Amino acid sequence: MDKIAVITSGGDAPGMNACIRAIVNTAWQDDVEVVGFRHGFRGIAQDLAQPLHPDDMRLVSQRGGTFLKSSRYPEFREVSSAQQAARVLDSHGISALIVIGGDGSFRGAAHLQAHWQGQVIGIPGTIDNDIAGTDTTIGFSTAVDTAMDAIDKVRETAEAMARVFLIEVMGRHAGFIGLHAAIAGAAEAMLLPELEPQPKLADMADNILRAREAFPDSSYIVVVAENLWPGGVHELGNNLSKATGVTCHPCPLGHIQRGGRPNAQDRILAMQLGAAAVSAILEGKRTIMIGLEQEHVVEVPLHLTFARDKPLDQRLVQLQLGLQGVNLASKSATKTA
Amino acid sequence: MDKIAVITSGGDAPGMNACIRAIVNTAWQDDVEVVGFRHGFRGIAQDLAQPLHPDDMRLVSQRGGTFLKSSRYPEFREVSSAQQAARVLDSHGISALIVIGGDGSFRGAAHLQAHWQGQVIGIPGTIDNDIAGTDTTIGFSTAVDTAMDAIDKVRETAEAMARVFLIEVMGRHAGFIGLHAAIAGAAEAMLLPELEPQPKLADMADNILRAREAFPDSSYIVVVAENLWPGGVHELGNNLSKATGVTCHPCPLGHIQRGGRPNAQDRILAMQLGAAAVSAILEGKRTIMIGLEQEHVVEVPLHLTFARDKPLDQRLVQLQLGLQGVNLASKSATKTA
Amino acid sequence: MDKIAVITSGGDAPGMNACIRAIVNTAWQDDVEVVGFRHGFRGIAQDLAQPLHPDDMRLVSQRGGTFLKSSRYPEFREVSSAQQAARVLDSHGISALIVIGGDGSFRGAAHLQAHWQGQVIGIPGTIDNDIAGTDTTIGFSTAVDTAMDAIDKVRETAEAMARVFLIEVMGRHAGFIGLHAAIAGAAEAMLLPELEPQPKLADMADNILRAREAFPDSSYIVVVAENLWPGGVHELGNNLSKATGVTCHPCPLGHIQRGGRPNAQDRILAMQLGAAAVSAILEGKRTIMIGLEQEHVVEVPLHLTFARDKPLDQRLVQLQLGLQGVNLASKSATKTA
Amino acid sequence: MDKIAVITSGGDAPGMNACIRAIVNTAWQDDVEVVGFRHGFRGIAQDLAQPLHPDDMRLVSQRGGTFLKSSRYPEFREVSSAQQAARVLDSHGISALIVIGGDGSFRGAAHLQAHWQGQVIGIPGTIDNDIAGTDTTIGFSTAVDTAMDAIDKVRETAEAMARVFLIEVMGRHAGFIGLHAAIAGAAEAMLLPELEPQPKLADMADNILRAREAFPDSSYIVVVAENLWPGGVHELGNNLSKATGVTCHPCPLGHIQRGGRPNAQDRILAMQLGAAAVSAILEGKRTIMIGLEQEHVVEVPLHLTFARDKPLDQRLVQLQLGLQGVNLASKSATKTA
Repeated sequence: MDKIAVITSGGDAPGMNACIRAIVNTAWQDDVEVVGFRHGFRGIAQDLAQPLHPDDMRLVSQRGGTFLKSSRYPEFREVSSAQQAARVLDSHGISALIVIGGDGSFRGAAHLQAHWQGQVIGIPGTIDNDIAGTDTTIGFSTAVDTAMDAIDKVRETAEAMARVFLIEVMGRHAGFIGLHAAIAGAAEAMLLPELEPQPKLADMADNILRAREAFPDSSYIVVVAENLWPGGVHELGNNLSKATGVTCHPCPLGHIQRGGRPNAQDRILAMQLGAAAVSAILEGKRTIMIGLEQEHVVEVPLHLTFARDKPLDQRLVQLQLGLQGVNLASKSATKTA
Repeated sequence: MDKIAVITSGGDAPGMNACIRAIVNTAWQDDVEVVGFRHGFRGIAQDLAQPLHPDDMRLVSQRGGTFLKSSRYPEFREVSSAQQAARVLDSHGISALIVIGGDGSFRGAAHLQAHWQGQVIGIPGTIDNDIAGTDTTIGFSTAVDTAMDAIDKVRETAEAMARVFLIEVMGRHAGFIGLHAAIAGAAEAMLLPELEPQPKLADMADNILRAREAFPDSSYIVVVAENLWPGGVHELGNNLSKATGVTCHPCPLGHIQRGGRPNAQDRILAMQLGAAAVSAILEGKRTIMIGLEQEHVVEVPLHLTFARDKPLDQRLVQLQLGLQGVNLASKSATKTA
Repeated sequence: MDKIAVITSGGDAPGMNACIRAIVNTAWQDDVEVVGFRHGFRGIAQDLAQPLHPDDMRLVSQRGGTFLKSSRYPEFREVSSAQQAARVLDSHGISALIVIGGDGSFRGAAHLQAHWQGQVIGIPGTIDNDIAGTDTTIGFSTAVDTAMDAIDKVRETAEAMARVFLIEVMGRHAGFIGLHAAIAGAAEAMLLPELEPQPKLADMADNILRAREAFPDSSYIVVVAENLWPGGVHELGNNLSKATGVTCHPCPLGHIQRGGRPNAQDRILAMQLGAAAVSAILEGKRTIMIGLEQEHVVEVPLHLTFARDKPLDQRLVQLQLGLQGVNLASKSATKTA
Repeated sequence: MDKIAVITSGGDAPGMNACIRAIVNTAWQDDVEVVGFRHGFRGIAQDLAQPLHPDDMRLVSQRGGTFLKSSRYPEFREVSSAQQAARVLDSHGISALIVIGGDGSFRGAAHLQAHWQGQVIGIPGTIDNDIAGTDTTIGFSTAVDTAMDAIDKVRETAEAMARVFLIEVMGRHAGFIGLHAAIAGAAEAMLLPELEPQPKLADMADNILRAREAFPDSSYIVVVAENLWPGGVHELGNNLSKATGVTCHPCPLGHIQRGGRPNAQDRILAMQLGAAAVSAILEGKRTIMIGLEQEHVVEVPLHLTFARDKPLDQRLVQLQLGLQGVNLASKSATKTA
């Protein structure tokens, strides 16, 4: 064992740099060299190698994004791509590869493993938190903080103008950011792909109207997961405005949710997982993801991380459903009293 | 002189609360009472009065939005509305009204003045900075910081993925936020209503392509003022993506730009103008706006503030045009050398 | 069951307001009234009651501190104080009391329970995280973020001037903030009460000198827990400066660590615990603390929370000890190679 | 004209990096090369040259500190040091030097000019804002925002616990940060070197006691400039605590005030001054500072920048003195009414 490689793959996430630092520094303690490939799997295929040394890791963990750069690389589904990557890795004398990324990246990692004899290890790095086998992923906590900060800002103008806002948050096909941001932002309603049953437009409109009647001077904020409503939050705004007669302003948060300095939780998580990945390699492990469950580092077979959906914590769903409706109910109760 | 009134009107802006604090505290020093009307001109017409006391001002200046609430109230263009407002003000024994708002609010203020014998004083409070007669407006500096923070965040993910982003900033029909955010965010290009001539799509596409060739690994950020491109930044993104073959991601910042705690500059400006407005009232002034020009508090006839457009500082425009193009040129120069 | 009370006690912590909101809103759903007493146990003894209604909870969870106010109240150790508090609670018809605070507050809560027949429930609210029976406490995560932000700021000037800084963080007699901030801030060294053996001055000085030799152009940051070094971080700075000949700048972070808007993690934790406390009351529970262990809400006998020390997570201690020393070692290794 | 040099000198200030970017990019447009020397004047004397290219300037302006590094270098007062620096500059074929720094650095710049035939140009970069001939300096605005943020944080815990805090801010021998932070933080009192007469301890104690009587539930914050009270803010705290019987908590903000990402105002100012400095060099100017007065770029003879003290804006002093005392007065008035 003398040389390992690391890539960041798929959408970047705050904390990826801290993870790379932990990998490099931990490996160095065991006299293992680390090579990075820029731009993820594409960088392996195109041999965009970059030696990584502890001296260069001193000031990276504070920064968002990934200094190793990332990319989406659908071509990697081809067998020839995986074979090409295996050749490149072998040509560098690399015996293990750490892939920091999301579920798409882990599919790529498993694909590579099928065509390479080295050890492939995944570390969950995505703001979406939609990876089974780990309670959280690198970047998720920071993304929730960023979405919450944005909701807090919109809340101020919404209060001043007594307006309804529909805030669209990221999360592709999972409601983790939406759920956590809705709780943290004390949202009046939320629309997430996992809710059963999905709220109906008529009910949402009805809730808005009742809230407007009870609190004519106040804001009303709905957190909406992206890719959920046909036509997006703009169309939802049109529909709700028509149904209620109240202008419902769309406010998609967009790519600011990926950026920003990682918060402490993401930096610490990233360093834990990075150090554990190196240890796992030294122990001869392969084809696993290093995750965190119930505050413990765990090893999960790689294919299990993308073979099943990760459910929302139903206790948090119920918490928010309980808290978001109470103001209106209480006011009505008072009024009828 | 014993009682004055204050409203916040139009779009809310960070710093409005600090301005109200300065008005109330300054008036109190001269034994003048202050009454607020909630929701701007509508609140006067509907007599939504709220006494304001220094004790209640202790913790407001740190907060964004406006605790007095605001509104847009087109009905106030009617003569009958102004007359109704005059009656309400008189019924409270109010001898002067301070209107914190933008150019639309100042038109309303002038309209009221035509039908009321009291003193009407304007204070420029809008993130757009599009008010003639003052170098800056309450909320502008904070909004620029907010837009810059967002650009910094998008920059990180743009760098990681080597992407082109089109960031839409507020400013209705003026490019102040866009210009300042473009400089502060070190944008590669900007699209503002005041640019002469307007950049053509073909030229913008050409610049993007040349930048992609010179820096294939890097980000490219265009700051775009809202209401400028037909179909907005999404349509611009479609057009540029087609013209370049490179995906140009739209990223409208939206209403987060109005919110947030005011920065120090906006708080200090707000308190300066608020205190000066009370002094002007005590000196018998009327139908003026209190502004800040070249670091000095100035008094400007109210109608001049909305009768003419406020130009961008051409020195800053030239600064950004010079800085934004240099990297590409330098690289090309190097390559041809 | 129709009326419960809540206090915040001891040092305030970001998230306390969100916790109160969850208590009030959850109780309201079950037709239970909530009364707050201002200033903690002192407020009960002095009957500083304040009814709490969901309508007033709409905008509190975003804010740091505690709107119910807190205090330290050593007089509450007296039996007569507890009896007085019991009388006040009874006079309001209160059947349960929720105490949000730290270990000192929980001793007070247990003391009250001994003299009152109502249900006493504790919720861990302290930035110090030094409460046994819960993995984390309300305010801890935000305090770590705040300390990390400060370290990041000091890092920039330390890098520019190639300086050594000793950053003192809060934590009374526990190293939780220090450990987490050291990892997140990528500190070069840390000094915590729990380290065994404690680093010696000579070794610390030696490490600094070796780092200065290896990286003469770079910063060196030591995170130091308060109340640890005799004379504090100023005296430590004097000692280290003498021992090394290099000026070691003291930088106590102080009370900024208590303030600030709570981050998402603390808001969500606070709402979880607040809602669970109300549920526990409805189930007839008493003399327990509601905590969070391994992501699950748990109930812990109150006396166990302060009868034993809570240890640092040794895996995190080892992580930081491994990461902080590696740069220097690697450089030396390179030099001798 | 084909090569110029730039250094950052003295205490680092947020925005220095943006200034370097503007210098490099502006020079490049005119085919002028730029060389940086690391660590200020020491770096010239020791020939720590580093070529600067626009390609490397893409991502620096967002960052605090100075990537060129700085230092304090008292040895530069020697004639031999200046002669040595002149030799190094000549050996590189450098015809002009831009010094970004404070008044000490400008003395050094003037000293060098006396022994070198090239053009020396100063740009004011210091958080202290204590340079005559310019309304503001690079880094001042960000430092005020940082101090204000810290005051806001301390305000929350001070409100929760109803405490008195003495917050010490930077500024060496000038009260600019203190004055602006006191206004922006809505401080109840301030202690600055320029106040005439200086508040007496007995009066300060009296104000605190009257405030505690009027507002027993509230915070009281005094902003204190460093280097003003003998023994610093800790000794002042002791004195005031004894005089009042109320614990007055010292809270020195320390070096966090130098760090942090520059705000928009500092980035824009830095780029304006950097570009103007290059223009001045091309026009043959020498021995001047480029400053900003009343929103216009100005050129000031270098020796005038440190030959006289820069006064505080008395209008802002009066504003704060008026606002800070009013609450107490109002409450007393109410009580006696």
